Amino acid sequence: MNFKQHIEENKDHYLNDLFTLLRQKSISAQNDGVRDCAALVVGKLKEAGITHVEIIETEDHPVVYAEQHVSDDAPTMLIYGHYDVQPPDPLEEWKSPPFEPTIRDGKIYARGVGDNKGQMLAQILAAQTYIATAGELPLNVKFVFEGEEEIGSKNLPTFVETHKEKLAADFVYTSDGPMLSSGNPYVLLGTRGMLYVELKAKGSDFDNHSGNKGNIAQNPAWKIIELLQSMRDDEGNILIEGFYDDVEVPTDLERQLLEQLPFNIEELREQVGDQRIDLSKADYYKKLCFEPTFNIAGFSSGYSGEGAKTIIPSEATVKMDMRLVNNQDPDEIFERFKAHASKFAPDITVAKIGAMSPSRTSADYQIVETVREATERSFERKTFIQPSLGGSLPNHVWTNILGVPSVIVPYANADEANHSPNENLVVDNFYKGILCTCEVMKAASQMTKDELLQKRTTLA
Amino acid sequence: MNFKQHIEENKDHYLNDLFTLLRQKSISAQNDGVRDCAALVVGKLKEAGITHVEIIETEDHPVVYAEQHVSDDAPTMLIYGHYDVQPPDPLEEWKSPPFEPTIRDGKIYARGVGDNKGQMLAQILAAQTYIATAGELPLNVKFVFEGEEEIGSKNLPTFVETHKEKLAADFVYTSDGPMLSSGNPYVLLGTRGMLYVELKAKGSDFDNHSGNKGNIAQNPAWKIIELLQSMRDDEGNILIEGFYDDVEVPTDLERQLLEQLPFNIEELREQVGDQRIDLSKADYYKKLCFEPTFNIAGFSSGYSGEGAKTIIPSEATVKMDMRLVNNQDPDEIFERFKAHASKFAPDITVAKIGAMSPSRTSADYQIVETVREATERSFERKTFIQPSLGGSLPNHVWTNILGVPSVIVPYANADEANHSPNENLVVDNFYKGILCTCEVMKAASQMTKDELLQKRTTLA
Repeated sequence: MNFKQHIEENKDHYLNDLFTLLRQKSISAQNDGVRDCAALVVGKLKEAGITHVEIIETEDHPVVYAEQHVSDDAPTMLIYGHYDVQPPDPLEEWKSPPFEPTIRDGKIYARGVGDNKGQMLAQILAAQTYIATAGELPLNVKFVFEGEEEIGSKNLPTFVETHKEKLAADFVYTSDGPMLSSGNPYVLLGTRGMLYVELKAKGSDFDNHSGNKGNIAQNPAWKIIELLQSMRDDEGNILIEGFYDDVEVPTDLERQLLEQLPFNIEELREQVGDQRIDLSKADYYKKLCFEPTFNIAGFSSGYSGEGAKTIIPSEATVKMDMRLVNNQDPDEIFERFKAHASKFAPDITVAKIGAMSPSRTSADYQIVETVREATERSFERKTFIQPSLGGSLPNHVWTNILGVPSVIVPYANADEANHSPNENLVVDNFYKGILCTCEVMKAASQMTKDELLQKRTTLA
Repeated sequence: MNFKQHIEENKDHYLNDLFTLLRQKSISAQNDGVRDCAALVVGKLKEAGITHVEIIETEDHPVVYAEQHVSDDAPTMLIYGHYDVQPPDPLEEWKSPPFEPTIRDGKIYARGVGDNKGQMLAQILAAQTYIATAGELPLNVKFVFEGEEEIGSKNLPTFVETHKEKLAADFVYTSDGPMLSSGNPYVLLGTRGMLYVELKAKGSDFDNHSGNKGNIAQNPAWKIIELLQSMRDDEGNILIEGFYDDVEVPTDLERQLLEQLPFNIEELREQVGDQRIDLSKADYYKKLCFEPTFNIAGFSSGYSGEGAKTIIPSEATVKMDMRLVNNQDPDEIFERFKAHASKFAPDITVAKIGAMSPSRTSADYQIVETVREATERSFERKTFIQPSLGGSLPNHVWTNILGVPSVIVPYANADEANHSPNENLVVDNFYKGILCTCEVMKAASQMTKDELLQKRTTLA
C-alpha cells in the first residue's frame, strides 16, 4: 500500500486526531491549556510509533521532543513546529467557536488549525503513515515542538544552544505560514531579522504655550526629526556608519530564483492597499528578501485630537523597526545605531525593545531542490523557492546556532487568517501535507548525507 | 476729592459690583449666561454715568457698546475688553466654587476675575470715579466689550470692519493678561499672529505588516518628515520661499526697549521647565517679539502604546503653529506654505485650521510713553514697554482694521491662573487698575490729538 492510499483510508481517523488537538486550548500568552496540549502531542507521537518521546522543560512552556533513530548511516531530519496558539479574540467575529473545529466549504475553522496544529500534526501523521506502510521510517527523525512560538520563542535559542548534540541533524524541516498568494506551494530558505528600538527626546518638563514660549522652549519633535534625517537620505539609503557592511548581495542562483517566482502587480496593490505601487518583479523580491528596512512604526508627540492645541510638546517618542537581512547582526546594528544617535543627539535616549537575527539557507544545497520536487509531487502544483521571507521568524536557531540548512514548506492556504478570527485550513491541504512530509522523508532517505549537502550553481 | 480718595471711600461698593459680575456665569463656549452677563454690563455702564449704552448683535454673542462724547476737540479713547469667561473645569481642583467669589490672602478667587471681568470693570469704574469726582469725563470714551474672546473673537473683525466710523478713535486701550513675572506693570504694543495648519500624509489604505511589506508599502511618516525638513534647515531657519519677506527688523527704539526689560534666566528656566535654556536678554526678547516660530504642536503616526507593534502606518498627521510677526500676513504665509508642500510632496494634504494677523503699534508714539508714565504713577512700580507679546490676541482689529495705535496694560498679577482652576486677582490690583485708567484718561486728555501721535526716536 502506498502513502496516498493509506492516507485516503485513514482520512476520518486523521481528521479526528486533528479535531482532538484543536479542541484542546494552548494559548501561550495566557498560559491556558498549554501543558495539557503538550501531553496530547506526546500521546500522538507515541501512537504514531515514535519510541523516544519526552517533555523538556524551559523557563516557561515546555518543548515536546521526540526522536526515532533508524541507522547511523541514514541522514537525520529535524522537524520543527509549535503547539501553542494565539488568543482567539475578538470572539464575536468568529462564525463558529474557535475551539470547536467546524468544517464549512472544504475548510476546517478553528484557532490554531493553520498556525500551527494542522501543519505540525501532518508531520506526526506522516511518520505514522510511513511506519504503517513501510514498517519503519526511512531516515532518522527528530521532532522539536515548542509551546512559545506565539510569544516570541524566547526560550528557544537557549534550548537549542544547550541541546546542540541532542539536536544534531543534517537539515531542519518546518511547515508553518501560508502558501504563496497565487496558491502555489513554495520552499522558503530564510527570514529577515529584526531590531526594534524606541527613541525618546525630552524637551521641557511640561508642554509650553507655543506663543509665550515660542522660539524659547526646545521642541523635541524637531530634535528627533533632525536625528532621523541624519540617519537616512531622501532616497531612503541609511547613513548610519556600517549599516550595510554585512549585507550580502544575492548570488546568481538566488537572482534566478527571484526571476522564477510568481508576481502580480495588481494583486500586490490590493494586498498593500495602495494603487500607486509600481515595482518590477526583480525589484519587489530584491527589496523584500535582500534589503534591510528602516521603518517608523510609530511617532507620537504633542496634540493629536481634533482642531488646534497651541503647545510646544515636552516629549517626542519614535518607535522603529529594522528588518535585517543576512548577515546583519541585530546587536551590532543596535550599537551602530546608538553610536550615531549619541554622536548626533546625545540627549535623545535609545532603547532596544526587541531583536531577532536574520537567517538564510544557501539555495544551492541539493536538499533544497529535493524538498521542492517532493512538494511539487505531493501538491501537484508548480512549486517555487524563495530565498527569504520579508518577515521574521526564529529560524536562525537552526542555521546559526545548530548550523544546518533549514527549509520551510508552508502547507496552509494563503487565506488561512492566522492570528485572526475564523482561522482556517483547507481540509485537502491537511492530507496533502501528510503526503508531502512522507515524500520529503523518502526523497531525503534516498540520498547520502553528503549528497544532501552537495552544491549546485544553476537551477535544474 | 481726588481719584485715590474716591476709590478708597467706595472700596466695598466697587468690590460688591465685581462680585455681582463674577457670580453671573458667562461661558461663551457653552452659551451659559452670556446674555444675562451682557445685561449686567449694560447696567454697570449706565450706573457709571455713561449716557449712550447699547447691545449690538453679532452672529453669535453680542457686543456691549457704549460711548460718552464730551467734546469734538478732545481725543477719543476706545476701551476694549471682554465679559465672557472660560469654562471652569476641572471643578474639583477649585478650592472655592468658581462662581462664588471668595477672598483669601488678599486675592479674589473666581472664574474670570482676572480674565477679564476684574480688568474690564476697572475701566467702567474708572469712568464712574472720574464723573463722580470731576463731574464729567475729560475726553471722549468708547467702550467695546465683546462676549466671544474666549472662543476666538470670531465675529470681532467683521464687527470692527462694519462699524469703522462708529468706532473711530485716537487710540485703543486694553487691560487683559498678567503683568511681567517680575511683578512690574508693562505696556504691550502688539502681539504675534498665528497660522495653524494640519498636514496629512496618506500611505496605504491600512497599516501593513512591517516585515511582509517592509520596503514595499510607502511610509507616510517618512514622507512628512522629508517635507518638514525641506522647509527648515538644522539651525531652524525656514526655507519656504518668501517666509521672511515681510518680517520687520526692530527699530533702534524697539531695541532700546528690549534692553530695558527685566530678565532673569533662572526664572525663565523655571517657567519653561528646562534648566538647559541659555539665552541673553537681547536674544530672548528678539526671539519672542521679532521672530516667527515654526512649531510642531503634534505629530502622530502609527503605534504609540507600550512595547512594540510592527507596522507600516497608513497615515501620518502633523499639527503646526506658526507665530507670525509684524508684517507677516497669515493668509499669504499659508499660500506660500501650501505652494512649497505641493511642489515638494503633492500627495500630502495641507489644511488651514486657524489664522490671526500679527499686530504692532509703533513704540515712538507719544501716547505710548504717556500711558507708561500713568501706569507707573498708579502702580508705583517701574513700568516697562514691550514691543510685542509672544502669544496671539485679536489686537490687529485695532491696528490693522481701525488703523489706530493700540496699547495693552495688564492689571492682573503674574500668577492670575487665567483659564485654570483657582483663577485669581490681587484685590489691590483691582483698585490700582481703576486708578490707572483714571490716570490714563487724565494724561491723554491733557494732550491734543496731534500731540498724542507725535513721534519720538529715543527713550525719555
